[in-house]
Amino acid sequence: MGMLSEGLTQVLIPAAALVGIAFALLQWYLVSKVNVSGDFSNGYSGKLIEEEEDGIDSLEVSIKCAEIQNAISVGATSFLFTQYKYLSVFMAVFAAIIFFFLGSVKGFSTKSEPCTYSQGKLCKPALANAAFSTLAFLLGALTSVLSGFLGMKIATYANARTTLEARKGVGKAFITAFRSGAVMGFLLAANGLLVLYISIILFKIYYGDDWEGLYESITGYGLGGSSMALFGRVGGGIYTKAADVGADLVGKVERNIPEDDPRNPAVIADNVGDNVGDIAGMGSDLFGSYAEASCAALFVASISSIGISHDYTAMSYPLIISSVGIVVCLITTLFATDLSEIRDVSQIEPSLKRQLVVSTILMTVGIAMVSFFALPSEFTLFNFGTEKAVKNWHLFFCVTIGLWAGLVIGYTTEYYTSNAYSPVQDVADSCRTGAATNVIFGLALGYKSVIVPIFAIAIAIYVSFSLAAMYGIAVAALGMLSTIATGLAIDAYGPISDNAGGIAEMAGMSHKIRERTDALDAAGNTTAAIGKGFAIGSAALVSLALFGAFVSRAGINTVDVLTPKVFVGLIVGAMLPYWFSAMTMKSVGSAALKMVEEVRRQFNTIPGLMEGRAKPDYANCVKISTDASLREMIPPGALVMLTPLITGTLFGVETLAGVLAGSLVSGVQVAISASNTGGAWDNAKKYIEAGASEHAKSLGPKGSDAHKAAVIGDTIGDPLKDTSGPSLNILIKLMAVESLVFAPFFAAHGGLLFKFL
Amino acid sequence: MGMLSEGLTQVLIPAAALVGIAFALLQWYLVSKVNVSGDFSNGYSGKLIEEEEDGIDSLEVSIKCAEIQNAISVGATSFLFTQYKYLSVFMAVFAAIIFFFLGSVKGFSTKSEPCTYSQGKLCKPALANAAFSTLAFLLGALTSVLSGFLGMKIATYANARTTLEARKGVGKAFITAFRSGAVMGFLLAANGLLVLYISIILFKIYYGDDWEGLYESITGYGLGGSSMALFGRVGGGIYTKAADVGADLVGKVERNIPEDDPRNPAVIADNVGDNVGDIAGMGSDLFGSYAEASCAALFVASISSIGISHDYTAMSYPLIISSVGIVVCLITTLFATDLSEIRDVSQIEPSLKRQLVVSTILMTVGIAMVSFFALPSEFTLFNFGTEKAVKNWHLFFCVTIGLWAGLVIGYTTEYYTSNAYSPVQDVADSCRTGAATNVIFGLALGYKSVIVPIFAIAIAIYVSFSLAAMYGIAVAALGMLSTIATGLAIDAYGPISDNAGGIAEMAGMSHKIRERTDALDAAGNTTAAIGKGFAIGSAALVSLALFGAFVSRAGINTVDVLTPKVFVGLIVGAMLPYWFSAMTMKSVGSAALKMVEEVRRQFNTIPGLMEGRAKPDYANCVKISTDASLREMIPPGALVMLTPLITGTLFGVETLAGVLAGSLVSGVQVAISASNTGGAWDNAKKYIEAGASEHAKSLGPKGSDAHKAAVIGDTIGDPLKDTSGPSLNILIKLMAVESLVFAPFFAAHGGLLFKFL
Repeated sequence: MGMLSEGLTQVLIPAAALVGIAFALLQWYLVSKVNVSGDFSNGYSGKLIEEEEDGIDSLEVSIKCAEIQNAISVGATSFLFTQYKYLSVFMAVFAAIIFFFLGSVKGFSTKSEPCTYSQGKLCKPALANAAFSTLAFLLGALTSVLSGFLGMKIATYANARTTLEARKGVGKAFITAFRSGAVMGFLLAANGLLVLYISIILFKIYYGDDWEGLYESITGYGLGGSSMALFGRVGGGIYTKAADVGADLVGKVERNIPEDDPRNPAVIADNVGDNVGDIAGMGSDLFGSYAEASCAALFVASISSIGISHDYTAMSYPLIISSVGIVVCLITTLFATDLSEIRDVSQIEPSLKRQLVVSTILMTVGIAMVSFFALPSEFTLFNFGTEKAVKNWHLFFCVTIGLWAGLVIGYTTEYYTSNAYSPVQDVADSCRTGAATNVIFGLALGYKSVIVPIFAIAIAIYVSFSLAAMYGIAVAALGMLSTIATGLAIDAYGPISDNAGGIAEMAGMSHKIRERTDALDAAGNTTAAIGKGFAIGSAALVSLALFGAFVSRAGINTVDVLTPKVFVGLIVGAMLPYWFSAMTMKSVGSAALKMVEEVRRQFNTIPGLMEGRAKPDYANCVKISTDASLREMIPPGALVMLTPLITGTLFGVETLAGVLAGSLVSGVQVAISASNTGGAWDNAKKYIEAGASEHAKSLGPKGSDAHKAAVIGDTIGDPLKDTSGPSLNILIKLMAVESLVFAPFFAAHGGLLFKFL
Repeated sequence: MGMLSEGLTQVLIPAAALVGIAFALLQWYLVSKVNVSGDFSNGYSGKLIEEEEDGIDSLEVSIKCAEIQNAISVGATSFLFTQYKYLSVFMAVFAAIIFFFLGSVKGFSTKSEPCTYSQGKLCKPALANAAFSTLAFLLGALTSVLSGFLGMKIATYANARTTLEARKGVGKAFITAFRSGAVMGFLLAANGLLVLYISIILFKIYYGDDWEGLYESITGYGLGGSSMALFGRVGGGIYTKAADVGADLVGKVERNIPEDDPRNPAVIADNVGDNVGDIAGMGSDLFGSYAEASCAALFVASISSIGISHDYTAMSYPLIISSVGIVVCLITTLFATDLSEIRDVSQIEPSLKRQLVVSTILMTVGIAMVSFFALPSEFTLFNFGTEKAVKNWHLFFCVTIGLWAGLVIGYTTEYYTSNAYSPVQDVADSCRTGAATNVIFGLALGYKSVIVPIFAIAIAIYVSFSLAAMYGIAVAALGMLSTIATGLAIDAYGPISDNAGGIAEMAGMSHKIRERTDALDAAGNTTAAIGKGFAIGSAALVSLALFGAFVSRAGINTVDVLTPKVFVGLIVGAMLPYWFSAMTMKSVGSAALKMVEEVRRQFNTIPGLMEGRAKPDYANCVKISTDASLREMIPPGALVMLTPLITGTLFGVETLAGVLAGSLVSGVQVAISASNTGGAWDNAKKYIEAGASEHAKSLGPKGSDAHKAAVIGDTIGDPLKDTSGPSLNILIKLMAVESLVFAPFFAAHGGLLFKFL
């Protein structure tokens, strides 16, 4: 037994979660003190800001900001509610599938069964596991939806406030955007932990001593979280890029009006897209990773000595790590908001990067303490049919290496996507000879950028796998995600600043303000790329952990590449990311064409729109984008959700194991290269536009041939970096967690095809 | 024992090879009857063709053809000789590495060792295996070089002849191009078989009854073949695309002269590139596959009951399959050259596709006969430490499924890359909204095009693996390659027609002639794509077979994904195709820039060049392209050659097995999608240019915005389809065969890092 008592554990976890929520609310309160009189029900009477530094910005401009913010918020809410309508149908259907598949494992018998791992004991019937898995699935799905929704709310609440604060200086604007990001980060981390904790407490009332069944059912939580994330990422990704591409193709190319011009009917849809894709989608994605990593770790622990001997504190090790993570992130946040102040544009990016380093260092200390106090000095872990003896300091290394691998991935991503370094500058330079060379160099950059992250992930896997088998992988994933609140804060900061810049542009604010929001936005691009790197890296670890848990639960002890069943799964699994990307990329194209038609129609039929005398029908564009993206998200969603079910049922667990391993090792590469290629093209374009160096000036200005070539690259990169790339995280995670949840069914009734042959 | 006697087997194999060579020489003779008076030593006096149908083509035009052909031939020969100079250094160094690594397995002892598989017998010392492996490596390398060189020779011999024959009609031109392709196909298949057969006979003089050592040493033949193919593919691929892109960027963009204009100094280098890349590179590649598949099958057979019981005929089953393949292809060729005649442009593509179907059907009968006569009705195969009983009809199914999977891959590739079908037409249509949508749709097409080939490969693997373990995979690969002579004939036909079209264009021949060569060229594009599909499909099967042979030789019985050593290898292996592609794509970019500088220099410094009064310095461009490509091929070559050595030595055979499996399942996807994306872009451009339908006309003509967008896609596709994509075949094959050859060393001394830890 470790030194931390069971009672203290039961206080510590919910306390940390509540502290996180309180801290998030405090940040929200601080952001809300920035007064935006965009409350249309009250008219436009309020005074906009207390200290007006830049007198050049009139009241009218401020009202415009409020108006735009309102339109974005209404659009995003409308999209999410329509999406939830679809998803509630999906949830109901899939909940029924879970219940019937898992219930059928023992023919819906209500009799208790002998336990699988705790020999000689009786466990709850399979039917109960089916019911509680279904319940956990619904809880996970609802928490995921809540995470995405709250993130979107605060982001659309903060964007105009950031724009308005930019009038007082870059420091104030930075604090507003960053605090808003922190609201999302802390709410998500704390809610995820709290709901999981409460679920375990409540499930225990029924399960009692049957921890096997308890933690098996809890895995439904991860499945629920990730399946919502799939549709959030895919639907949101298609939405945002359809609107973006559609707005540009008519506005910039045909009508020759600037980007983010309020006359463009699709401009609000474009800004809405940032919030539903990059904010809500990313939030659901990382929540899914967090939930799955916790579930994988808990499941493996439950069938190891700590589970069998009912050591509650050691069992809760994954949750305690997350609890300490919330506290560490809270302290880290103070470094950005209170302990230092941004006075100059050049301090923004270092300040954000400092957040990563500070949280990583503090968390390393936290992990050491938790590993020392919560774990017994030695215990045994389940390792595919054998027992593996581990010590508490082994676990410390597992969690820590995951944490630091995340930092390495973050820094590598920054190197390949920030235009402060040579890779992006080379891509920009290749625009001299046209779009073709730009694309060739960009693709090559993306391919190259996988090398270091893959080695970082490989080393993390090797160390944690060797030290503590699949439990080691699961806690390494948790280590990478332990600073999720900080990670999400600096990640959400990106789209908020992006929106703030758009609002400044649309409201026609002064050059000075725009310069400030542009500087925030540039740093935001880099942190968004880092966030994607984190999401992919953690997804790789999480899916491996889930894969291991699946294999354990399915009762197979080896996944031998040298058997036809496994190898066939491996090669088909490696193909799935390509099939999935083909669907999502084509969806963006089709959805963008629908948007083009609607924007053209409005320009042609609304009199006075081009002259600015009439308002465009933003809501219709939002609706077009919503409907198209929701329709288009179904085929890729079905591919991901049905593959494990069909493979497991028809071909059995060995082939499914092959599919999971194949899609994991192949999908990670496609995801990293797609995200970084897209990010690099975006920043190469920005590099030419900004013209900050002699080299950049020689390529520009806006409208030069090199700039035009860069714009083409940027457009190609849009679906790569914001739709197909990040969705692949969820593909690999979701197939793994779904396999884990359905493992009892596959083990009992799977492989029908081979049984008949 | 099977029904075929040992004596008859020893006659049949060399006889088939000699028949193949004789048939190739006959075809060459028939091609040579087309008189081209381009023999500059004899002056320009000869009558050019006997029946002049199109009087509009003057003697001057014909002389121009001969002149251009000569320049292309000289350039290609010069490149290959420079390449061989480099490669001879590589061969010497690598031969020494093989000898010392393998010799050190038993400390260079000259004493006989107990055999590994034939218990109680004595086998030759490891030092002898080292020496003979080195010898086999050199023989394989030389045969590969010979295959590539002869292919290039006949291709550059036939291109102007095809142009000249086009004056008599499309049928005559087709026959000339096709016969020339057949020369290459038959020479390669027959030489590959003959050299392998003779090597076995000669090695046997020393090895006597030690078949284990004999067939282990013979695997060096595959390594030699494939390592030359690596540099052929990569160097040739960089060469051809550097010249192509360089010629276009200066000629078409800066100087506004048409494509293939003889004033462009890089135009000859461009045409040379087709011959050294698509002909010599492809030839070496497929020879490598053939040699490796044979070696893998022979090695596995030698450690199975047929090897241990010294059943010579059954042992020679792989070679007999290839022998029958030559005869089948000979009959198939007659269908195109003698049994039917092309009278109309629309008959070209069906005639080429008929070759595939006819050869596949005839070969199925051939396989049945060989399986029945050459194999015992039942025998046992080595299956990773266990024995597996198989029947002769099992082997029939293994070979046949490989053969038919090749046909499925060929037809799928055609569907996704021919502009007769909707996928390419959709890509062409997306050019309406610019280059960005063209690239998005093209990438999506490439991703989608992997689905059917992967399922075809997966089914072939599942069936042959289940029926006859790794031997089944090896003979399935041989089945796919059994019609290699026909496959290469229709594949080589492509670049020959392409060159013929270029020569017609450069020589300023009449519109009628150009129409005919264009029709040949269009069909050639499709067959080139099919050839690439074949190369990739067979590479996948071959590398799996080699992987199996490696695992057997290294003495490991499972490759369990659930061990850290293997999983780490798997994920890093899956990354290698990306690293490799990043290198090759960037190399094309850099080499193209060097070419741009040289072409600019010539236009600026040679007076009268633009006016056609002075000749450009073609040789200098050829030299620039040669030097640049040879320099650039070293880093990707080193990556491929060193990865197995470093991984095996430092991390051991389990990690290396993971690397091989990972690079195989990931590389196949990258290779197929890259080739098909590039092919689709090329044909989308051609679709718009040809304007053969209402839809195509609405996008064109040449110079329209949609056409410009299509040209950008085509340029991006160049390095994807002709450099990085096809080189990946060799990456996955070569790492596998290298691992197999070095397996005894790795098994004895590998995994140093883990031993120290």
